[in-house]
Amino acid sequence: MLPVRASRHASRQAGRRSVIAASTPPIRPSSFTNPIQIFASRDQRRNQSTSPTTATKSTHREVVFSGIQPTGVPHLGNYLGALKQWVDIQNSAAEDTTLIYCVVDLHAITQPQDPDDLRSRRRNTMAMLLAVGLKPERCVIFEQSRVAAHSELMWVLSTLAPTNLLARQAQWKTKLAESEERSPLDPTGSGKLKLGLFSYPVLQAADILLYKTTLVPVGEDQVQHLELARDLAGKFNRKFGKVLVLPKVKLAPAKRVMSLNNPTSKMSKSGAINSQINLDHSEDEIRKRIRTALTDSTEGISYDPENRPGVSNLIEIMGHMTNMTDFQAIARDCEKLKMKEFKDRVADSVVEGLKGIADEYKRIKEDGDYLDKVSMEGAEKANRMANETLREVMKALGMR
Amino acid sequence: MLPVRASRHASRQAGRRSVIAASTPPIRPSSFTNPIQIFASRDQRRNQSTSPTTATKSTHREVVFSGIQPTGVPHLGNYLGALKQWVDIQNSAAEDTTLIYCVVDLHAITQPQDPDDLRSRRRNTMAMLLAVGLKPERCVIFEQSRVAAHSELMWVLSTLAPTNLLARQAQWKTKLAESEERSPLDPTGSGKLKLGLFSYPVLQAADILLYKTTLVPVGEDQVQHLELARDLAGKFNRKFGKVLVLPKVKLAPAKRVMSLNNPTSKMSKSGAINSQINLDHSEDEIRKRIRTALTDSTEGISYDPENRPGVSNLIEIMGHMTNMTDFQAIARDCEKLKMKEFKDRVADSVVEGLKGIADEYKRIKEDGDYLDKVSMEGAEKANRMANETLREVMKALGMR
Repeated sequence: MLPVRASRHASRQAGRRSVIAASTPPIRPSSFTNPIQIFASRDQRRNQSTSPTTATKSTHREVVFSGIQPTGVPHLGNYLGALKQWVDIQNSAAEDTTLIYCVVDLHAITQPQDPDDLRSRRRNTMAMLLAVGLKPERCVIFEQSRVAAHSELMWVLSTLAPTNLLARQAQWKTKLAESEERSPLDPTGSGKLKLGLFSYPVLQAADILLYKTTLVPVGEDQVQHLELARDLAGKFNRKFGKVLVLPKVKLAPAKRVMSLNNPTSKMSKSGAINSQINLDHSEDEIRKRIRTALTDSTEGISYDPENRPGVSNLIEIMGHMTNMTDFQAIARDCEKLKMKEFKDRVADSVVEGLKGIADEYKRIKEDGDYLDKVSMEGAEKANRMANETLREVMKALGMR
Repeated sequence: MLPVRASRHASRQAGRRSVIAASTPPIRPSSFTNPIQIFASRDQRRNQSTSPTTATKSTHREVVFSGIQPTGVPHLGNYLGALKQWVDIQNSAAEDTTLIYCVVDLHAITQPQDPDDLRSRRRNTMAMLLAVGLKPERCVIFEQSRVAAHSELMWVLSTLAPTNLLARQAQWKTKLAESEERSPLDPTGSGKLKLGLFSYPVLQAADILLYKTTLVPVGEDQVQHLELARDLAGKFNRKFGKVLVLPKVKLAPAKRVMSLNNPTSKMSKSGAINSQINLDHSEDEIRKRIRTALTDSTEGISYDPENRPGVSNLIEIMGHMTNMTDFQAIARDCEKLKMKEFKDRVADSVVEGLKGIADEYKRIKEDGDYLDKVSMEGAEKANRMANETLREVMKALGMR
């Protein structure tokens, strides 16, 4: 097992409930490349026992599930919106909480992929999950395509999912509009719209339901899909008996990490080269990019997203990196700073927050044997859990 | 291993190519309960070596795949349209031809199913496949839901299957019309139309492509689905390299076994009780039902499907049972017979043709251990073959 940096792996305190603050907002990247974001709220955990040794144990252990697409090296938006939270949850969750983090490669292929790119991205995404501090001995970390039951449950749920409900999914509607097809059923259409784009929310439902997941906090753009998952679980249970668990949804505050050189747009992989900070960037690169971030010439620092989007974005980034969510307070702290001094302070927080990740990523990426081992062991654990649910599903359907 | 009746299991002659005559027509039951029908034509086999010992061996061994839905005890229409042909193929195929017969339970759940009914129907269908004479030591006989790769390849093909191509499938259009929905995407619709009904031709494509099937003869109503399978295989190969095999289609003559008491409709499970002969009927029952079959009061016997549908249906049944496909010749043979004598002769052919099946079915159904063994061994063989193709598919996609 690889040693992990102690700073990212504060020993889990049994029974400690505090999870990331609800005001740490997830970042919503564009549709279809969106990692399913997860965090646990204090409220949702209130009903649990405060210590595994007390008699007031919850009746159902919590199961947290989240997925990330293998789209390349994650940027700061992905980190603050998902990965940092995954690590925070790991480090604060009750001992009997199951944590499942999945590289959703089957979702990735709903968009055209170059096979060699996909192959290295899958691997690099696994490496990054480990580099940010997820511990394979605590979490189930695996690649979706290694667990057949995702596709199997997806088919079962397909037989319960109304087509008109899928047609109402906002992400599908976006994709439909972008395709410039009159209708996905138009016989004279180009055929560009594929079944996978229409049906993938059902695969997402399977991803979640397969592990009897209790907690799937999401960004706003995923709420509709989570509702679909709950709906399908309910339909199954009513028809075939109570097998599936309806996951709880926790809406994340609708905040985003914005582009550094175009702070009214989200930070995104498809943005200009200086617009983002990637998790494999060196300290120098991070400092350079923040130094050249687009701000304004107003004197002093203040938090005003509407009129000072660049400065406000940097304040939010600093806040997220340091777990300080009162952005006005941060602004007051920095009020008198010159822009250069302020940017240096922002850069300090990012460099400190990401310390070691790039090195660790580089090191793990080169340790093929270790990555293989994590991948195989994760898949084995996931298969065990998934196949248990699938067995119950098949039995309830009359197929065992 | 159970002994099998010698009459149904003429020893396979190595290198013998003759398969069932092309004029033995498949029967087309109603949409969605339709077994995928299979037979091999002489033409399609002409290019093969005539003996395994010659030097002109074909470059690609033949792989025959067919499926049957677990809809209950098969009737004479299912037998003559599919099961009899499966046995004939088994008994005449080259030694190196792979024969795969699948109980497609995953397709069955696209229609509402009572779990207990489905459970016994799956089992009974397996028992019937054995009772009609399929040999588990020669064929791969298995239940679809025991081979995860069907659903896995289905997902992969989903990402290549245009929605507008699926919308053009005739069986979907029938289902849509029956549902009385304005559109499957209509947000105000009832939600009765499920994704599984829309997407199942893609699962059917996966069923076939997973085994690198070369031969899938079908009834007319399945040709469009087979074209879809070929289309998807071609799309995959062009994008990711030649992994999948495009199956050949052999169109079956568009004949049907008609209802006994309503000979202008197909024999079907949903017909009146006297309209069909089931494979588990006793000799007495078979004779009784043929005796009460609706014919006409015209003197003498003649083959005239339009004007004498009842008599003509009985002539066709007798022809199929005795592998005589010149229906006019049969009619001439029986020309002078009284209707009762003619019906007795038809009944003789059916009783002789189905001899032993009902007893064998009863016996196998009660031998749970044997059924379990066949089911498990079949699934194991199918999994081995399917996972090999899936591995190649995943590698080509960049997921291994």
